[in-house]
Amino acid sequence: MSKPRPIALLTDFGLQDTYVGAMKAVIAGIAPQAPVFDLTHAIPQGDIRRGAFELWRVRLALPSGSVVVGVVDPGVGTQRTPIVIATPELLLVGPDNGLFSYLLADVGGIQAYALENPAYRLEPVSTTFHGRDIFAPAGAHLATGVPPDALGPAVGDLLRLPWPHLDSPDASTLAGEVIHIDRFGNLVTSIGLLKHRAEGLALTPWIPGREGRSLPGTRFEARLGSGPTIPMGRTFGDVSRGELVCYVGSDGLLEIAVRDGSAAERLGAANGQPVWLAQKG
Amino acid sequence: MSKPRPIALLTDFGLQDTYVGAMKAVIAGIAPQAPVFDLTHAIPQGDIRRGAFELWRVRLALPSGSVVVGVVDPGVGTQRTPIVIATPELLLVGPDNGLFSYLLADVGGIQAYALENPAYRLEPVSTTFHGRDIFAPAGAHLATGVPPDALGPAVGDLLRLPWPHLDSPDASTLAGEVIHIDRFGNLVTSIGLLKHRAEGLALTPWIPGREGRSLPGTRFEARLGSGPTIPMGRTFGDVSRGELVCYVGSDGLLEIAVRDGSAAERLGAANGQPVWLAQKG
Amino acid sequence: MSKPRPIALLTDFGLQDTYVGAMKAVIAGIAPQAPVFDLTHAIPQGDIRRGAFELWRVRLALPSGSVVVGVVDPGVGTQRTPIVIATPELLLVGPDNGLFSYLLADVGGIQAYALENPAYRLEPVSTTFHGRDIFAPAGAHLATGVPPDALGPAVGDLLRLPWPHLDSPDASTLAGEVIHIDRFGNLVTSIGLLKHRAEGLALTPWIPGREGRSLPGTRFEARLGSGPTIPMGRTFGDVSRGELVCYVGSDGLLEIAVRDGSAAERLGAANGQPVWLAQKG
Repeated sequence: MSKPRPIALLTDFGLQDTYVGAMKAVIAGIAPQAPVFDLTHAIPQGDIRRGAFELWRVRLALPSGSVVVGVVDPGVGTQRTPIVIATPELLLVGPDNGLFSYLLADVGGIQAYALENPAYRLEPVSTTFHGRDIFAPAGAHLATGVPPDALGPAVGDLLRLPWPHLDSPDASTLAGEVIHIDRFGNLVTSIGLLKHRAEGLALTPWIPGREGRSLPGTRFEARLGSGPTIPMGRTFGDVSRGELVCYVGSDGLLEIAVRDGSAAERLGAANGQPVWLAQKG
Repeated sequence: MSKPRPIALLTDFGLQDTYVGAMKAVIAGIAPQAPVFDLTHAIPQGDIRRGAFELWRVRLALPSGSVVVGVVDPGVGTQRTPIVIATPELLLVGPDNGLFSYLLADVGGIQAYALENPAYRLEPVSTTFHGRDIFAPAGAHLATGVPPDALGPAVGDLLRLPWPHLDSPDASTLAGEVIHIDRFGNLVTSIGLLKHRAEGLALTPWIPGREGRSLPGTRFEARLGSGPTIPMGRTFGDVSRGELVCYVGSDGLLEIAVRDGSAAERLGAANGQPVWLAQKG
Repeated sequence: MSKPRPIALLTDFGLQDTYVGAMKAVIAGIAPQAPVFDLTHAIPQGDIRRGAFELWRVRLALPSGSVVVGVVDPGVGTQRTPIVIATPELLLVGPDNGLFSYLLADVGGIQAYALENPAYRLEPVSTTFHGRDIFAPAGAHLATGVPPDALGPAVGDLLRLPWPHLDSPDASTLAGEVIHIDRFGNLVTSIGLLKHRAEGLALTPWIPGREGRSLPGTRFEARLGSGPTIPMGRTFGDVSRGELVCYVGSDGLLEIAVRDGSAAERLGAANGQPVWLAQKG
């Protein structure tokens, strides 16, 4: 038998209860030699969009061949379909509710299958804990080499979340939105998302592991809504304490931060708020 | 050598300090190839009953042959005995303070041994951290194939917590108690505990992985203390937002919830409060 | 190939985001068979001294040959050097900012190398997430058997934090300081640090796994600042609820506690506050 695939877990279960523990117990019984690791279990409860963003964030760090089990599933027990999505690099296991849609944005040649084969579920399946009864066993069986199409019939159209706003209103400006506020109050924006990159702007945001970094010679500045202009640096270390700065973050996205402070608080920022990046006039 | 057993960990140490890390470091030194996974480390400090409940909850997800190291041990350094309990399916390592007593409720043919053999402890043993010095090394050595009776002399009577209240006051009613309030404010009750099942009521609570699910044709309703009657559904999705519902949860126990809300808050619930489930009149 | 080394992780990233998840994903791609475990990820943000203390705490539990990846790195992206430090027992990977200096206090024969070889980094390296791009890949490659000197050129002087205060003002007294307040409000002090042990006092603090425990026949009492004298016991179980006690903790250090209460609150304690331990007059 070949080596088992690694299994990465992402849920909104938190670590207070034994929900994640039960999933790992199931995996240990089916695929004891598979490397298992946590991406995070702190997705806010039912926040599919946040889960989708975090999966997008870590996509390039995931080893080729990994199984990703993602459970942010407010519709558990209703009609949404439990699926596995096979991409050229990954196997994605979870509900068909958009959770994987950012991660899949640039990926072609995918196939999806409904997790219906009882041989790869814990029967009888509960109505409220598919993480344990459907998703963990599916992920573990896939890790041991079971092919995705053994798990159930092919599924056509997948549910997709709308892509975060990104536009080039003119040749020297990119328009996007705040897509995540991290625990330090840094604002992560949609500017830099590979798919929508505005080549015309000569901005080549860095995508880890995939292409060379090309920080532009031209200077840039950002603006959040109708707020002040924010100078662009390499990192927050480029400005003094308490000052605003924007830079290309470790995900290749434009981020806005206050050094040793909270940009979210300073600017009163919220998810979805419009952001502009423009060449300095 | 045969494959190492999986090791499951449950403690009240939290993840703020390196206590769990030290236990895992000890295990990695003794049984580096054993799969190690966390059930939870967020048991409230010293809450043996809660630890016992969580171990009961995950019991059926644990792979046969697992070693469970459980450390909720307010009496560390006093006269309570560190033990391993061998059941037909599991090896349970921890203090003899009742932590495993719910999990053992339906299990026959058990043997327990005191963890006295210095060859399987980290000597000198500290007075305050038996997780690192006694329980982790015992669990790791057991995982590598050391037989339980090599760890010390047999122990007779084990300390048992009182079993949660469950009764059938008449042919159409089950009486139990609230045994756990989860972080969503859902109430988990003792109604459904396998051992005390009231066959006469034609209620066959679902026990994951062990027996078919038989939701009764008869309709039921629950009551908490002197509160309102609560209709029974399959899951909280069966009622509108803000409404009370009861259902058989993923542990096979009757649960009471408010859809998209907190039943604990709504009903002013507390652990130990009486619950009734009755056929709808 | 020989067995992969275990990899222990300690960071200040928390578990809310996927930062730790991304590090583990990178490790799973490079060293899928290496045992990976968390020491903690809850070091307060940028608190190098606390990280250093926690690494010191767990040092004796770490299996010989372990790789420790430690990322408490407020200077990420600035001129501090990413390094690996090879000791006779461990390989320490992280920033050269003092994080490993307590752990190294008693260790001789060390060699350090800058993590400059691009073959063992994720190129292009981001400015803000060296955990993923430099430290995780270095740790994983070391775990698979890559020798430390393959990662880059030798580094001379390492940055060292000042050692916590510890002194013997007279033959019957030890003077130290509070170095950590744990989540229970227990005060961990510098008294007992191996290196500065005052043999003259006939106090032989217990160092787990390294030497026999010798609790002195003479009786001791402690004092925090100008506070009351605190009797010495074996553990907090030796006094009544609500009473102050000091004892040699599981790290071999003098600790001050209130049974079932918070010594930090009772005594208004803070890190760095002076502590004395004296023979009872």
